[in-house]
Amino acid sequence: MLYKFKQRFFLDRPIYFDVAFSYTDVQEHIFEIKNCLKIGHQDVNCAVVDVLRATTTIISSLHNECSEIYPVISKNAAKIKARELRKKNIKKKILLAGEKDGKALEGFDLGNSPSNFERKIVGNNILIISTSNGTKAIHAVKEQENVFLFSLANLSATASSIMKPIMKNYNLLVVCSGREGKYCEEDFIASGLLIKRIISLFNKKEYICSDSAKASILIANFYKEDIYQALLDCSWGKHLIKLGLKKDLEFCSRTDWSNVVPKFKNGKIIVS
Amino acid sequence: MLYKFKQRFFLDRPIYFDVAFSYTDVQEHIFEIKNCLKIGHQDVNCAVVDVLRATTTIISSLHNECSEIYPVISKNAAKIKARELRKKNIKKKILLAGEKDGKALEGFDLGNSPSNFERKIVGNNILIISTSNGTKAIHAVKEQENVFLFSLANLSATASSIMKPIMKNYNLLVVCSGREGKYCEEDFIASGLLIKRIISLFNKKEYICSDSAKASILIANFYKEDIYQALLDCSWGKHLIKLGLKKDLEFCSRTDWSNVVPKFKNGKIIVS
Repeated sequence: MLYKFKQRFFLDRPIYFDVAFSYTDVQEHIFEIKNCLKIGHQDVNCAVVDVLRATTTIISSLHNECSEIYPVISKNAAKIKARELRKKNIKKKILLAGEKDGKALEGFDLGNSPSNFERKIVGNNILIISTSNGTKAIHAVKEQENVFLFSLANLSATASSIMKPIMKNYNLLVVCSGREGKYCEEDFIASGLLIKRIISLFNKKEYICSDSAKASILIANFYKEDIYQALLDCSWGKHLIKLGLKKDLEFCSRTDWSNVVPKFKNGKIIVS
Repeated sequence: MLYKFKQRFFLDRPIYFDVAFSYTDVQEHIFEIKNCLKIGHQDVNCAVVDVLRATTTIISSLHNECSEIYPVISKNAAKIKARELRKKNIKKKILLAGEKDGKALEGFDLGNSPSNFERKIVGNNILIISTSNGTKAIHAVKEQENVFLFSLANLSATASSIMKPIMKNYNLLVVCSGREGKYCEEDFIASGLLIKRIISLFNKKEYICSDSAKASILIANFYKEDIYQALLDCSWGKHLIKLGLKKDLEFCSRTDWSNVVPKFKNGKIIVS
């Protein structure tokens, strides 16, 4: 744990926690939160997760001093973005990264294995990244003011950073990237862990959980002893192992090793 | 438990269990199951659940000797169906039942409180029913050959009945009705309980669970001691309590009191 001194927050009304299972669910959840909390014109605070592997890769890159990251939703969009940035004569090196169905995109500089995004490669450079689910999930919430990205790597740092916007709007929608629009276990476990970290920062009674938020905490509690085993057992983890990427599962299971909390705003990810 | 003598089944390959969170998810799940199991032209076995309250009401009605039930997806569709049946000069009484947002539909004979579907009312009569989520979920899988309906009321009976089709196609998709296209806890708990009941009928190693099926078992295990408390705590349960329908939660939490396993085929629900 990087956080030795835990700041305590006292709230005047409960926080509402919700979890969306994938990027396809997001709009309905945002609509319902705004409706329930009667905050039609305000924003919903969002935390997007793709444990295996997009948000872990993004945190890893920013941790290694990548200067900014542009998440895009397809290989083509990545190429268009690169062209656009090059036209602006940006002096920094522009790297293309990404995957589809777990495999690295052909012709790109990097895949989506977070351990490959080393300081000597990404440091002070710009990254454009396209992945199957994670970058779609980030774009699904682009209309909201506060979009944080997290994975197991920065759970506690995210919990602390997110308290400020939460104390304004009293809500948090955790967005699992999922797998092709469907539920995946690893993101749901991370969602439960994040909500638990946030709850630990204030008085226990000051929150309300949606059914899905409640379920995420129960699943996280079940796996608390061994996240790595959960990654080995989940469907996407098994798929990555088949592709020879077991080392990525080890890397992605490491918890709370970074203080970096990425924020997405105006199409760009920077350290918040 | 109604089942004193448990039949044991021995399979030559594992059963694949999957759970869809709501009627909006169903088509993607069916597509993926067919793809994964390479059974493109075969059917996916489906078990639809709406604990609060549609499938409990349907089981209750058939248990009380209602002769057949037509589930429809709207109030208007219910009226059209009634007109169509009356034109056929069916001698049986045709009853209209249903709800929207938890409230009984105006002008209909019955709402969606399962305890109201007594023998003296529904016995030997025909029922047309429209509900917010449950009847939509049933229609979402109407293309499949084997569509069973279950709730807590008939868990063990469903597990036994469903073994025959499962032994043919080696798959089961449990379809939660959910709430307005989103996850709801009570259906997910029932899904986990059904899958556990089925697993108990054969050798433990003869199955594979999708991430969502695995999660449903974990959530069911958490609540095993007190389903009624789970219904009191879930979001739809709280909504029904606000509408003065707490007695429905008590009724719907009662487990394994019926041997009736409804089956949906050609727009009609009958006892399988």
